[in-house]
Amino acid sequence: MSVTAPLGFKAAGIAAGIKAGGNRDLALVINEGPSRAAAGVFTANRVKAAPVLWSQQVLSGGRVRAVVLNSGGANACTGPEGFQDTHATAEKVAASLQESAGEIAVCSTGLIGERLPMDALLGGVETAAEQLSRDGGLAAADAIRTTDTVSKISFKRGDGYMVGGMAKGAGMLAPALATMLVVLTTDADLTSEELDAVLRKATAKTFDRLDADGCMSTNDTVLLLASGAAEVKPPLKEFEEKVTEVCADLARQLLVDAEGASKAIAIEVVGAASEDDAVKVGRTVARSNLLKCAIHGEDPNWGRVLAAVGTTDAVFEPERLNVAINGVWICRGGAVGDDRDKVDMRPRDVTITIDLSAGTNSATIHTTDLTADYVHENSAYSS
Amino acid sequence: MSVTAPLGFKAAGIAAGIKAGGNRDLALVINEGPSRAAAGVFTANRVKAAPVLWSQQVLSGGRVRAVVLNSGGANACTGPEGFQDTHATAEKVAASLQESAGEIAVCSTGLIGERLPMDALLGGVETAAEQLSRDGGLAAADAIRTTDTVSKISFKRGDGYMVGGMAKGAGMLAPALATMLVVLTTDADLTSEELDAVLRKATAKTFDRLDADGCMSTNDTVLLLASGAAEVKPPLKEFEEKVTEVCADLARQLLVDAEGASKAIAIEVVGAASEDDAVKVGRTVARSNLLKCAIHGEDPNWGRVLAAVGTTDAVFEPERLNVAINGVWICRGGAVGDDRDKVDMRPRDVTITIDLSAGTNSATIHTTDLTADYVHENSAYSS
Repeated sequence: MSVTAPLGFKAAGIAAGIKAGGNRDLALVINEGPSRAAAGVFTANRVKAAPVLWSQQVLSGGRVRAVVLNSGGANACTGPEGFQDTHATAEKVAASLQESAGEIAVCSTGLIGERLPMDALLGGVETAAEQLSRDGGLAAADAIRTTDTVSKISFKRGDGYMVGGMAKGAGMLAPALATMLVVLTTDADLTSEELDAVLRKATAKTFDRLDADGCMSTNDTVLLLASGAAEVKPPLKEFEEKVTEVCADLARQLLVDAEGASKAIAIEVVGAASEDDAVKVGRTVARSNLLKCAIHGEDPNWGRVLAAVGTTDAVFEPERLNVAINGVWICRGGAVGDDRDKVDMRPRDVTITIDLSAGTNSATIHTTDLTADYVHENSAYSS
Repeated sequence: MSVTAPLGFKAAGIAAGIKAGGNRDLALVINEGPSRAAAGVFTANRVKAAPVLWSQQVLSGGRVRAVVLNSGGANACTGPEGFQDTHATAEKVAASLQESAGEIAVCSTGLIGERLPMDALLGGVETAAEQLSRDGGLAAADAIRTTDTVSKISFKRGDGYMVGGMAKGAGMLAPALATMLVVLTTDADLTSEELDAVLRKATAKTFDRLDADGCMSTNDTVLLLASGAAEVKPPLKEFEEKVTEVCADLARQLLVDAEGASKAIAIEVVGAASEDDAVKVGRTVARSNLLKCAIHGEDPNWGRVLAAVGTTDAVFEPERLNVAINGVWICRGGAVGDDRDKVDMRPRDVTITIDLSAGTNSATIHTTDLTADYVHENSAYSS
């Protein structure tokens, strides 16, 4: 179902020959309207790939007719020539649809610092345009995979409308935006301003709270396209909930598929003076390599949790910190609490609860453990 | 030589039975004067171990008669009882020297969240006091090791005076202060204010620029003790250079011994608008797990360097960034530069040079690669 679950969308995923192995590597998603309203959020990295620079311009117009995505090359750090390659890709899609390139978003993922094989890519655009269909969502989701072991798709039904989506991302999941490409679609009828407000709120609570390895990519892009084909204008709050559900579902799939991870760790910060404090503490703890190693070794090492909390400027008193791992409060009042032998560390899911005893706010950050497999994958795979 | 290289110091290192294996685990360093001037810098972590809280109070008086250090337990996150343990340790040293506990600094390293075996520790203080000698510096350096594979000592000769030192630290080397215990000694005659100014400058350029894994400990302490026994008052600038040399030597030893590391990576940031910018960029790049994995795999992955630089707010334009690895400028103008096959990645020492093209300031941050051995050591060792 994926991006073609809502009415008004067609998609295709094909093998254009960008990847060496002959797997699918090019996806095309088109919005057949009647509306073309769209919104996007992009990586906060100041080193932005050419397709990010291009798509930011497209989205500033608030309308997207089509999104073309390729794996097998990030087109990042490729200079003016790389930007021209993105432009040429958008023009090719536009020509095949008899449209303006100004409404064609482009996303790329793969190796940084290498030019894309443009002959293969432009040929692939033609093929994809010919194969566009109402059930092309799965093939499109498959085509954007890099080290992803599975395709990531989701959809939720609203009151008379649908929200669908696909995502790509298995490493470099990080701050300010978990590194990935995501295309969300809906057949609800909303303006680009409404979509923008909803998308920012939904990503802030989902993808932004995923932090597998603290690294931020040059290519992160999340797009939300509305066709209006269902002829329904849902209450904004309800629509936001549906979009957030789809984002949360995709975020969870990204986390579970994170490179080399053996544990999915939820860092639940409670008792914070502000939500910002809770997010800050959760993110800092999520980035402690020492803690992530300990969790990998199934060691409920609350000392490393406290050591990480102590590096933040959040409101707390060290002697009032409490930490539970999988429900056992093994640190109370900044010191030894309940028996650590009571903690069952065997499940894949590990929840670390940190009570700052400083207020009533909370947030949860999701991360993974640090494993020898992570090291192996990222020593070998050049990205 | 170590801490007993300068005149006026005695030391001892003994096995008190704090560690299970029977290795040395308690060190005592005493200053026999005539001066007792001293200065200290401590972890910036807000979760501070009991001995750090204690020693900060001692150092606020500017005088230190003795330092007692133990491995085998950090005495961190141990509540009021842990603080009492530190106090009792200082009192025991004071009694054996017929002094006030207010001039006895205490340092601990090892597991967080466990009380120290006080009977063993206090008995050890007596034994150590009996064994104090002018050549006890090596034994003291040996006694403060945890996962360190070697003792770390250094000394430099000034004009009529000496600076000596010992250090402990093999993991959790981190920001704001590389995690470790360091005792520096000198027989030069300087006030505590002068020592403080010199120590802050020396550590800022050495230990503070070491960042093995981005984790900051609860126990970091660097002390500088002056006996005045050489009856020389060196020019402050010259003395600062000697102390900085000893700190740099010890910092290098810490880096080479970092847990599980196979590469020593110097991240040299040049062309920065300010020294702060240079340090910030260097530290951010030093913390990129993806880059550290790539270097481990001997992959000169400049894309991951740029992706890390891009997350900072330093002054730079993405299209003016240049990156060299081991002297080969493989990224020029934010895009592909010289042939990456020319980079020889085989040596243990790897230098990554980042030219921000934004000014004339520079700084070098030292880090290590991320290895499966790091994961194994830190999954197994509970700290």
